[in-house]
Amino acid sequence: MVHTEKHFKSSDLVTDVVIGMSDGLTVPFALAAGLSGAVHDTHIIVIAGLAEVAAGSIAMGLGGYLAGKTEIDHYNSEQKREAWEVDNLPEKEKEEVREIFADMGMSPETQRQVVEEMARDKVKWIDFMMRYELGLEKPDAKRARNSAMNIGVSYIVGGLVPLSPYFFVTAPAEGLKFSCIITVICLFIFGFFKAKVTGQNPWAGAMRVTLIGSIAAAAAFFIAHLFTQ
Amino acid sequence: MVHTEKHFKSSDLVTDVVIGMSDGLTVPFALAAGLSGAVHDTHIIVIAGLAEVAAGSIAMGLGGYLAGKTEIDHYNSEQKREAWEVDNLPEKEKEEVREIFADMGMSPETQRQVVEEMARDKVKWIDFMMRYELGLEKPDAKRARNSAMNIGVSYIVGGLVPLSPYFFVTAPAEGLKFSCIITVICLFIFGFFKAKVTGQNPWAGAMRVTLIGSIAAAAAFFIAHLFTQ
Repeated sequence: MVHTEKHFKSSDLVTDVVIGMSDGLTVPFALAAGLSGAVHDTHIIVIAGLAEVAAGSIAMGLGGYLAGKTEIDHYNSEQKREAWEVDNLPEKEKEEVREIFADMGMSPETQRQVVEEMARDKVKWIDFMMRYELGLEKPDAKRARNSAMNIGVSYIVGGLVPLSPYFFVTAPAEGLKFSCIITVICLFIFGFFKAKVTGQNPWAGAMRVTLIGSIAAAAAFFIAHLFTQ
Repeated sequence: MVHTEKHFKSSDLVTDVVIGMSDGLTVPFALAAGLSGAVHDTHIIVIAGLAEVAAGSIAMGLGGYLAGKTEIDHYNSEQKREAWEVDNLPEKEKEEVREIFADMGMSPETQRQVVEEMARDKVKWIDFMMRYELGLEKPDAKRARNSAMNIGVSYIVGGLVPLSPYFFVTAPAEGLKFSCIITVICLFIFGFFKAKVTGQNPWAGAMRVTLIGSIAAAAAFFIAHLFTQ
């Protein structure tokens, strides 16, 4: 039991890290590529890149953290409302359950029986209404917030990959060359694992993430070049 | 009926635009603020800002578009698998339905009846399994893709707000001053409507979006300043 729990947690962390890194690679890579066609010194690319990584990771991490908190508040307030209705308007709620099973094509007899038996356990009744009437699954409070923070931190690590070559060379064109090579490789690897951990086809996912990163970089390069003329 | 449909569509567009703009304000604002503490000319801020807006909107729009497509593929393949099981392993699927209703606390008699009646309509049976066993709601194909594109385009419009002052002045500090004023006002307004259209408390949402944007900008400014020394 303890082992299963541990395994689950480590796998969640892997998911967050892979998502954060594959996303973190994209925009800093594109920004650095764009600036490479517009400036004559890598120093400004490093500064702009680090500023973007700081801003992006905060927007993603803190934004996700607060969104997770809001989602939980929303679930709790809806659940409270549903519990109030079950207590104070049981006939209306029973009618709603009946309609759901009527929609499923159940006979009036079965509808009546289901309603009657569901009404015996209020906790399960409320849970059913949350899930079926409102389409809300109970959000995992701690998970949502930790996840946002892990993704934010991984965004920083991912963002440092495309920027790293610019730390070591002074000619932007040279930095761009090395940045393209390592970032495309990393986009492919992290796109592969991102798709794998989110239950999609890994090869298609690798292609997708690589494609988005490359198109974004090409567009940024083109735009920046245009405004440098 | 036609009127309702129209109303629904226009409201979807409003949601996308508000989300795209409020997100688009954040990172370009922070990047420009960061560079304002590190460079002596607004020209480079404009170029970096536009490169970021191009990269960010492509990552968000194209990324969302492809993610929507993937989600639909995933739903369709799961549905196909579920349909195959219903056709070829009906007893196993019936047992799964029975277990779901046993978990709800239904009596064996009701479980048996529900299973029997559900098995009469395969379409509804498969739909129930998708929703209750797998927790998958049918994704709206066109909506997901259009939405991603609308958000991407709105990101561009939102991103131009914090950059606009830098087009008209040459001193970064002056650009930053005006950028802060108009962006904080816009973050507050769009945060308010973003929360409203996503069904959350609008005042809390306005505070949240403004806070994230401000912290991101302060962090970017600090980081960029640190590496300029």
